[in-house]
Amino acid sequence: MNLRAVFHIIGILIVFEGLSMLFPLGFSLYYGDGDAGAIALSILICIVFGLLLFRFSRNQTELRMREGFAIVVFSWSSMAAFGALPFIISGAIPSYTDAFFETMSGFSTTGASILTNIEALPHGLLFWRSETHWLGGMGIIVLSLAILPFLGVGGMQLFKAEVPGPVPDKLSPRIKETAKILWGVYVLISAVETILLMFGGMSLFDALCHTFGTMATGGFSTKNASIAHFDSLYVEMVILFFMLAAGTNFSLHYRVLRGQLNAYRLDREFRFYFIFIILFIIIVAPIVYFTRTPSVGGAIRSAAFQVVSITTTTGYVTDDFELWGRGGQLIMLCLMFIGGCAGSTGGSIKIIRIMLVLKHGITEIKKLLHPNAYIPVRLGGRVVTPEVVTNILAFFFIYMIIFAGGSVCMALLGLDTVTAIASVAATLGNIGPGLGNVGPVDHYAHVPVMGKWLLSFFMLLGRLELYTVIILFVPEFWKK
Amino acid sequence: MNLRAVFHIIGILIVFEGLSMLFPLGFSLYYGDGDAGAIALSILICIVFGLLLFRFSRNQTELRMREGFAIVVFSWSSMAAFGALPFIISGAIPSYTDAFFETMSGFSTTGASILTNIEALPHGLLFWRSETHWLGGMGIIVLSLAILPFLGVGGMQLFKAEVPGPVPDKLSPRIKETAKILWGVYVLISAVETILLMFGGMSLFDALCHTFGTMATGGFSTKNASIAHFDSLYVEMVILFFMLAAGTNFSLHYRVLRGQLNAYRLDREFRFYFIFIILFIIIVAPIVYFTRTPSVGGAIRSAAFQVVSITTTTGYVTDDFELWGRGGQLIMLCLMFIGGCAGSTGGSIKIIRIMLVLKHGITEIKKLLHPNAYIPVRLGGRVVTPEVVTNILAFFFIYMIIFAGGSVCMALLGLDTVTAIASVAATLGNIGPGLGNVGPVDHYAHVPVMGKWLLSFFMLLGRLELYTVIILFVPEFWKK
Repeated sequence: MNLRAVFHIIGILIVFEGLSMLFPLGFSLYYGDGDAGAIALSILICIVFGLLLFRFSRNQTELRMREGFAIVVFSWSSMAAFGALPFIISGAIPSYTDAFFETMSGFSTTGASILTNIEALPHGLLFWRSETHWLGGMGIIVLSLAILPFLGVGGMQLFKAEVPGPVPDKLSPRIKETAKILWGVYVLISAVETILLMFGGMSLFDALCHTFGTMATGGFSTKNASIAHFDSLYVEMVILFFMLAAGTNFSLHYRVLRGQLNAYRLDREFRFYFIFIILFIIIVAPIVYFTRTPSVGGAIRSAAFQVVSITTTTGYVTDDFELWGRGGQLIMLCLMFIGGCAGSTGGSIKIIRIMLVLKHGITEIKKLLHPNAYIPVRLGGRVVTPEVVTNILAFFFIYMIIFAGGSVCMALLGLDTVTAIASVAATLGNIGPGLGNVGPVDHYAHVPVMGKWLLSFFMLLGRLELYTVIILFVPEFWKK
Repeated sequence: MNLRAVFHIIGILIVFEGLSMLFPLGFSLYYGDGDAGAIALSILICIVFGLLLFRFSRNQTELRMREGFAIVVFSWSSMAAFGALPFIISGAIPSYTDAFFETMSGFSTTGASILTNIEALPHGLLFWRSETHWLGGMGIIVLSLAILPFLGVGGMQLFKAEVPGPVPDKLSPRIKETAKILWGVYVLISAVETILLMFGGMSLFDALCHTFGTMATGGFSTKNASIAHFDSLYVEMVILFFMLAAGTNFSLHYRVLRGQLNAYRLDREFRFYFIFIILFIIIVAPIVYFTRTPSVGGAIRSAAFQVVSITTTTGYVTDDFELWGRGGQLIMLCLMFIGGCAGSTGGSIKIIRIMLVLKHGITEIKKLLHPNAYIPVRLGGRVVTPEVVTNILAFFFIYMIIFAGGSVCMALLGLDTVTAIASVAATLGNIGPGLGNVGPVDHYAHVPVMGKWLLSFFMLLGRLELYTVIILFVPEFWKK
């Protein structure tokens, strides 16, 4: 393991993080809430520390896959560690554990918050909090690849470690170009959402913050009541539409923008994703009708928003789904294990995996009827190799093991059973709101300190799709 | 589908079930509790109905795999349907739903009970209740193959449909011989346990009933307080030892009885099973110590018994694990997903599957470090084919889907979240006691009628290891 090369790149990224705090500094100065000094100091610390790290480590032209994994995991951890500075220095979040949790929740696009009164935060900090979502959404490393000249060499290793999805979609033979395209589409769609939200009466500040939360499938709001605060069908529809878009493979958006208008319709994963969501809205709406609101329109509206919000792993809230009866709650808990499409900003297990594993299950049942037939798993006419299927099945199994083990740990720390289970499901899947005491109208402030660190770790595990983090715990990884 | 051939064999089995009620009739007459008439009438109904079914359906010499699946599923359902007769006719269980639930719980070796006062039942019925465990433990079809001359042809199809484990261990080239050997070993070990329990002061009646519950990894007791009733370290140690034996592959017992004394030690699955149980006793004992009983010996005793009881899917209780804190409870819930070894009477996912899926997960992580290397999954030096691995992974996934969907259904029927989740885990895994309102000192009487039928279905699904039942729901299965 070439740790110097690792530190070298992390140094660059910390400097870059400091510079990205200039936006919240701008909003801070504009609104004059008194958090400008804290943000400015944070920028200074990031730049100085980052430059020192950069200076006293060596550049390594050749990066192996191992260094790729280490760089990605340590970068994300460092981004959360340094991103917590404005909250600490300003005193808005006095505990470092809480500040780290909040920042990791931001970068990992989870959206779980320890804040009990979000609206009390000054504008600069609120903006930084939402900006972490946006930076983390399409990937910090992918962004760096797109805009920093330093990272050209070894870029593929870094990209594969940060975006380990099962069906990598090469948009360009050059990884730098692919990163640029992905971020370009991301910026473009974000700009459209911001404008549409401003049409709905939001200020530029609120529109940007909620765009960040939507497009990254994050879920941080600037309001205590989340999207319910705006009480506007228009705002809800805009956010619902862009949550769906954020949960879609961004290469499909790119194709459509390039004129291939049937790209969505032809994509098997997108069709499955779309039908799955419609199906669950149809299942959930009657439950909402009978348990919560005796209005057909209201029930469909709540069900649609919440099903999309949880399935895409955004976590925005317009209705407290803990009031939808035990059955409604458990359906929402199950939806936390789905996630967006591959190549989207959505987290959790992801549609492509769910789809392939389901297809494989059907294949296994068919094999019982035709024991001597060779029945491969197919996706859109093409045969999926057994290696891909077993890899995905292993992912599912490891996900469940971490979920079960994590739930036990949280319960041992004193959380009640439902809260323990839901807190792990909601952080590992990068959703945000869970059930019980971490439900849609609650927060994570009351979780014990050790629990907050554990959940922060689950956010990172989930965001980097398990393997990239797990491999660092294999002793062989560190051998020469 | 040749339904006549299916009915033909089911007819034989119902006659056989009637005859097997002669044992409870004997105990009934001996104790004179007044249930002899009801049992005698049940025997009559079974024999008459069975003979009619046998007479008016045709014998089919050639059985395909399809008929095998249908025979196994419908036999088990019929056994539960007719086995419920003594409870209904005697009036001991007035509702047919409850009587069916109790009988399916018996045959499937689940041990979940709707009885609120077990000790109020007359001896004949109590014996029948425990006998259903024993008959279901090693398999009704396997028993029929061993002792009935009719079932020689097509026996392999039936055997494979009832015992679909991933590593079939052929003890004899003839399936009838294998069935005889398995049942022979089962009877022998059961006899030893009965004698040892009688040494501990139990009556022949109690010793037999608890042997049935142990050897079948069932869990029905004749006492309201389960094994805690006897308050005897000796009884607990005997039952713990035989639960471990019942969760072991019976072909290993056969080998040891044949003089191959190192059979246990050489078997990878048994070693994993043994180490797994020791590990979890070490994890659980401190939790019991800190939450329940401030005595080192007492904590180890409770932890050991309960870990073995739940892991082997028996479900006997010496201590209310709902008093072990949330963490202790969740660990017990997780253990409900393990089960005994392949070829044992234990249910749930089974050790061999857990082991292979874990090994596969490790292989996938190793592949990240050596992307170009071919790393197969090995078991005891032999390579496990990818087909076996994917089949097992699919089993795990389907198990989880049924668990999640079932939990949602139970919650929609009004059970609280923890009870809903645990009731499905405890019936699908054939354990018995769950958490919440179906915990170790509770019962299933309060579950709504629809919920009882659903849980009965899960017991059957779990006992026949999913595929055998699921395949009946595939439309293609019924086509010519």
